[in-house]
Amino acid sequence: MPELRKDPVLGRWVIISTERARRPSDFATARQPEPSDPGRCPFCPGNEHQTPPEIARRERDGNWTIRVVPNKFPALVPGAPERRGEGIYDRMNGVGAHEVIIESPDHAAELADLETDRIADLMGVFRERATDLARDPNIRYVLVFKNHGRSAGASLAHSHCQLIATPVVPVLVRNEIEGAGRYFEFRGRCIYCDIVKQELEEQTRVIAENERFVSFEPFAPRFPFETWIVAREHRCGWDALDQEHQADLAELLRDALGRINRALARPDYNFLVHVAPTSGPGNERHHFHLELMPKLTQIAGFEVGSGFYINPVPPEDAARFLREA
Amino acid sequence: MPELRKDPVLGRWVIISTERARRPSDFATARQPEPSDPGRCPFCPGNEHQTPPEIARRERDGNWTIRVVPNKFPALVPGAPERRGEGIYDRMNGVGAHEVIIESPDHAAELADLETDRIADLMGVFRERATDLARDPNIRYVLVFKNHGRSAGASLAHSHCQLIATPVVPVLVRNEIEGAGRYFEFRGRCIYCDIVKQELEEQTRVIAENERFVSFEPFAPRFPFETWIVAREHRCGWDALDQEHQADLAELLRDALGRINRALARPDYNFLVHVAPTSGPGNERHHFHLELMPKLTQIAGFEVGSGFYINPVPPEDAARFLREA
Repeated sequence: MPELRKDPVLGRWVIISTERARRPSDFATARQPEPSDPGRCPFCPGNEHQTPPEIARRERDGNWTIRVVPNKFPALVPGAPERRGEGIYDRMNGVGAHEVIIESPDHAAELADLETDRIADLMGVFRERATDLARDPNIRYVLVFKNHGRSAGASLAHSHCQLIATPVVPVLVRNEIEGAGRYFEFRGRCIYCDIVKQELEEQTRVIAENERFVSFEPFAPRFPFETWIVAREHRCGWDALDQEHQADLAELLRDALGRINRALARPDYNFLVHVAPTSGPGNERHHFHLELMPKLTQIAGFEVGSGFYINPVPPEDAARFLREA
Repeated sequence: MPELRKDPVLGRWVIISTERARRPSDFATARQPEPSDPGRCPFCPGNEHQTPPEIARRERDGNWTIRVVPNKFPALVPGAPERRGEGIYDRMNGVGAHEVIIESPDHAAELADLETDRIADLMGVFRERATDLARDPNIRYVLVFKNHGRSAGASLAHSHCQLIATPVVPVLVRNEIEGAGRYFEFRGRCIYCDIVKQELEEQTRVIAENERFVSFEPFAPRFPFETWIVAREHRCGWDALDQEHQADLAELLRDALGRINRALARPDYNFLVHVAPTSGPGNERHHFHLELMPKLTQIAGFEVGSGFYINPVPPEDAARFLREA
């Protein structure tokens, strides 16, 4: 079973993943790329038996269009959390969930190539899985994310998203809730609502908008062309995203991916969705947003050592370039 | 001039680096590797005029062995900090310093190949530069780090380290000081001293030790084979590292790099040194340590989105493998 361990100084949890264990000597040789031959792809139609049993699906005309399956090499697995100390150190067994969302039956289709209503279906699947997993009292957070391309961490070519449900709130989300809480105490308003307001007034960093969402380059982006898609009105969790919201989010996600692909020669990318935790105080201060990061630069020693990021492209320049793409 | 911008929710600073500016369209084409031809290398003997004016050097037999020069494309530059707001956002001009430490005149020599006394000289140069920069009241922190190899962020092949001096304390160091401060309040002891004590008792994660330092795999490592070298007695900053400490640190750094090279087929790597800030309350709670991270895995969406890390190698296994290398 995987194990969670806590850094005693920072309180940062890491997952020591025995299910994806590699012997130390495996690192002495370069990794072989996975086969991308559709005939052997476990995410392709006809090979459904190669995945663990299906958790959810969407269908059109009797064929599946989206499948959700457990990750075959899960970072976390179902169970009851048990915590124990060892001198100054803390461990917890690695309970949670790790699921794969296969975005379409087409081996060659990238997310950016799908029709908007298919992407809206995908948002509905995210909502269904996140709200289902939130019913487990051992689960404190559900993080939906995507790794596109090998340099962004994808190990299979057939386009897919993932979710990892964790028994503790991830430190970055906790920091967002604390930051938003301090702002609310001081000003009595949601900081994300104020960010949306200022971005829409200034327009210098905005990429696109529709009725329920706005996409823009954030004021202090870690990475070149980092793009956020934020709910225009205050929404905390997946449960607050009705079908109209799912459609509007899908439209801006497809728009952003299309612009990035046209402007930057189809780079690898990550995206992730930040929502409020499944329970706990102060969560109403959080605000639904998606963060999209093309993989264009390397994280180096300064970033790893400081938590600072060096970004060679001002977000106003990036926004202008993407608006024109 | 570069600019510092603060994320309004997280308080995380990013450097928008105009000196290393790249036009957005530069990202549309793949980067060309830099020339590694020694004849054109700005760090090689004979090409000293290609670097900005030298800041410090070490010599043996009339020839330089180590040179310190300003980074030609600095992330931060000297000046007086000016802060200004813009609605909910905060900016500061990008003041600080960014220096390159050329480790040896030999174009092909890697740090791990240098004799221990040359590496000890390098530690002495780090100490000289860090204590010199700390005299500037605008500088709050000096981070010494190394990017070895392209995948770890190095852009020139000739082996070198860097330092960046910042006008704010990096968030990761602030978090370490806060975590160590909470522990001290509760227990009345330095947490790093207690970590060293527990590691030396358990021995399961220890790689090597000498009189003044110990190297070990940390209990909750973010990356496979992440290795820390920690002062055995309480030491806060570079100024507390006398020549004996410099020699002992150099010995364990050379030992760790040699083991990693033998065990893992000479991987790219980063290291960074965490010391107390140049001034400020609670700094005596910090404890000198070096963090060394071979570049073996990709950081993907889950890590970027959560602050959690998934590590496929338990540190006890990694330590055994490195001890035997």
